Amino acid sequence: MLMCKVTGKVVSTIKNESLVGMSLITVRALSFDAKGNEVVGKEVYVAADPFGCGVGHCVLVTQGGNARFAIGDGKAPVDMAVVGIID
Amino acid sequence: MLMCKVTGKVVSTIKNESLVGMSLITVRALSFDAKGNEVVGKEVYVAADPFGCGVGHCVLVTQGGNARFAIGDGKAPVDMAVVGIID
Amino acid sequence: MLMCKVTGKVVSTIKNESLVGMSLITVRALSFDAKGNEVVGKEVYVAADPFGCGVGHCVLVTQGGNARFAIGDGKAPVDMAVVGIID
Amino acid sequence: MLMCKVTGKVVSTIKNESLVGMSLITVRALSFDAKGNEVVGKEVYVAADPFGCGVGHCVLVTQGGNARFAIGDGKAPVDMAVVGIID
Amino acid sequence: MLMCKVTGKVVSTIKNESLVGMSLITVRALSFDAKGNEVVGKEVYVAADPFGCGVGHCVLVTQGGNARFAIGDGKAPVDMAVVGIID
Repeated sequence: MLMCKVTGKVVSTIKNESLVGMSLITVRALSFDAKGNEVVGKEVYVAADPFGCGVGHCVLVTQGGNARFAIGDGKAPVDMAVVGIID
Repeated sequence: MLMCKVTGKVVSTIKNESLVGMSLITVRALSFDAKGNEVVGKEVYVAADPFGCGVGHCVLVTQGGNARFAIGDGKAPVDMAVVGIID
Repeated sequence: MLMCKVTGKVVSTIKNESLVGMSLITVRALSFDAKGNEVVGKEVYVAADPFGCGVGHCVLVTQGGNARFAIGDGKAPVDMAVVGIID
Repeated sequence: MLMCKVTGKVVSTIKNESLVGMSLITVRALSFDAKGNEVVGKEVYVAADPFGCGVGHCVLVTQGGNARFAIGDGKAPVDMAVVGIID
Repeated sequence: MLMCKVTGKVVSTIKNESLVGMSLITVRALSFDAKGNEVVGKEVYVAADPFGCGVGHCVLVTQGGNARFAIGDGKAPVDMAVVGIID
């Protein structure tokens, strides 16, 4: 999994029907430099969010087919989902 | 998932039979710099497109085995598909 | 999927039995610079090729478990396969 | 798989129910420079840890759907798990 | 798949029971520069090896869930396996 910072929301009117009603957020991977400061990755990912996270939250994100188990829909075309909020 | 910019179409006459009739588009991942300007990734990906997107559209793309659910063909050799158009 | 340039063939006498008789080619991902010139990626991948492609061909390659559907063998240990020749 | 160095633990109170009671650790990939010195990767990953590893341990980590087999839960939304401690 | 150079072995006493008795080797991806010289990648991967490869061998490695088919154990938590020795 990745530790990620929530950076925004994605709004999509025209989408796959299994995504209707699902919160989609943009996240960036978190790492730490030699001094322990947070470093936010350049890539922007979009994850399904069953927790209702807000911008700035630090979350745990799973990738790949496992993401379907996180959202309780075994056939949703989702490859990334939030599985926890990091304290 | 990735936010991507549609950059073109792929034309392939000789292809796997399960791809016949399926629109295939080239996309590049989108991110944002510190000022919030769009940055388009260098890598070019090819995604199946059930929405009929045009060049310049900003789309949501899923990767991996989940892509098969997006196109409604559980045995298509497709690892990337558009699942929504971003508003 | 990736657009790739075929760069060679792989010869392997000692291999998994499900790969016997299967053509294996080396490919590199294609992208384009700001002027539209082809840029060939540094990484070399090996893909199963059911089409009999030659060096220099531009092909469409799928990655991951989906590759097994491309070669019609649901249990072959193959993670990359050609699914089309780009015109 | 990846050889990884354990760098810390992840604490998450609000999480997917299948992660309750599972140890989650942060790891970084290990490689070696030309002189054989350890090089620790910049990316931080989070892995499920059924072994109770401590910070500084060198572990073997599997990625993707296979991780579910490592933790004995076929439907956990986990994409990375420790499968061994390297001597 | 990746062409890889075998660089060593991994010894792990405490490990997942399905890895007991399985040879685990470290490998690095191979590519070629403009003059055709071998370039060895920086990342170190660990692959299951059913062939008994030695250091310096050039091997073909599959990634992801497909690796389980290469070792004949459909539930082993293995995401990388040698599927052939390159001539």
